Amino acid sequence: MHRVKVRVVEDALDANNTIARANRDDFDRHAVAVVNLMSAPGAGKTRLLERALDGLPVRAGVLEGDVAGSFDADRLSLLHIPVTQLNTGKGFGGECHLDANMVRSAIPALPLAELDLLVIENVGNLVCPAEFRVGEDARVMVSSVTEGEDKPLKYPLMFRTCELVVINKIDLLPHLDFELERFLRNLDAVHPGVARMQVSARTGEGVDAFRDWLLQVRVPA
Amino acid sequence: MHRVKVRVVEDALDANNTIARANRDDFDRHAVAVVNLMSAPGAGKTRLLERALDGLPVRAGVLEGDVAGSFDADRLSLLHIPVTQLNTGKGFGGECHLDANMVRSAIPALPLAELDLLVIENVGNLVCPAEFRVGEDARVMVSSVTEGEDKPLKYPLMFRTCELVVINKIDLLPHLDFELERFLRNLDAVHPGVARMQVSARTGEGVDAFRDWLLQVRVPA
Repeated sequence: MHRVKVRVVEDALDANNTIARANRDDFDRHAVAVVNLMSAPGAGKTRLLERALDGLPVRAGVLEGDVAGSFDADRLSLLHIPVTQLNTGKGFGGECHLDANMVRSAIPALPLAELDLLVIENVGNLVCPAEFRVGEDARVMVSSVTEGEDKPLKYPLMFRTCELVVINKIDLLPHLDFELERFLRNLDAVHPGVARMQVSARTGEGVDAFRDWLLQVRVPA
Repeated sequence: MHRVKVRVVEDALDANNTIARANRDDFDRHAVAVVNLMSAPGAGKTRLLERALDGLPVRAGVLEGDVAGSFDADRLSLLHIPVTQLNTGKGFGGECHLDANMVRSAIPALPLAELDLLVIENVGNLVCPAEFRVGEDARVMVSSVTEGEDKPLKYPLMFRTCELVVINKIDLLPHLDFELERFLRNLDAVHPGVARMQVSARTGEGVDAFRDWLLQVRVPA
């Protein structure tokens, strides 16, 4: 008698990852690159998208995640790109983040066949959004210099699970006590060498680099 | 035969409120006024406390809520007041808020007999902290002008469930597009007439009014 090799089914009980993979399959089928954009409330995600998606030479769309309202979606729809609103307050218990199942529920409302790039603007929150993959290719977090240098140390999972950190509101640096070097040291302490760029979504400084970064996010062939 | 009047036991299944009441009883027994201080990450809660608690003519202490680390607690301990750290990442699953049970777990570590005022600095988050009473007398939320005028509309529960809104970082107003009148209109739309004050925790402007406000928070006799 010989032993049968036991196959370990990992993540078997993680429904979120199962659904994220289903989302990923749908995005792949339509060759849509997907970016999960996260930050604290008021860090400037929407303003950054207003700047970066305007005239971007690919077919871009946005899935807007908010507890309530469609304020950011209304702003972004002025760019004449497809914008879909997902409210966690209706039917999802007012959740403080998006998860794979919420994104799955929105997929029928997304014009995937008409998109090359989908940006999912998550709920403003530095804790829970980091815990839920939604089927994205890349995760970007926006950290505003007005929030202080300590944020990577206080919210390590968020800074650790992203592929790019956009340091926003650098136009305000002359008026703050914020020490950029200290922030970067804290960032490297939790996620050594992670890609980072400095921008001002308000003045437009540095936004071209973010546009270039968005254009290189590609679905694996 | 007559009908027996049915007594409706409301909130019977809400364990959080049950525990919040137990906390409240402990605070009352020691005549400690308790303030639950909430905001988005980086809005300036800790800096505000550094200014407001320094030399305050009552015996004040702080319960610091964070996912990880004790950065704010370390800063506040320089005031030579009792500071207790509560990390949600250890034993509480990395929760994005404090709830009544977490505060209950911290009570044995709090020197209640030596305090007149306890400030509970919640995890930086505009969503879930608003959903959990912890046994406090009053709730304060800090909203920084760098976060934009739309925050009351996007996070209505947070702005609706507090007794005071502290509008912080007003020293930056000359450098922002922020329209204070628009913010106040949005605030009154979700919580008409709620008490509000404008401060700069950095320059100290307006902090005396917040100190006065803290001193009038009293345990009901």
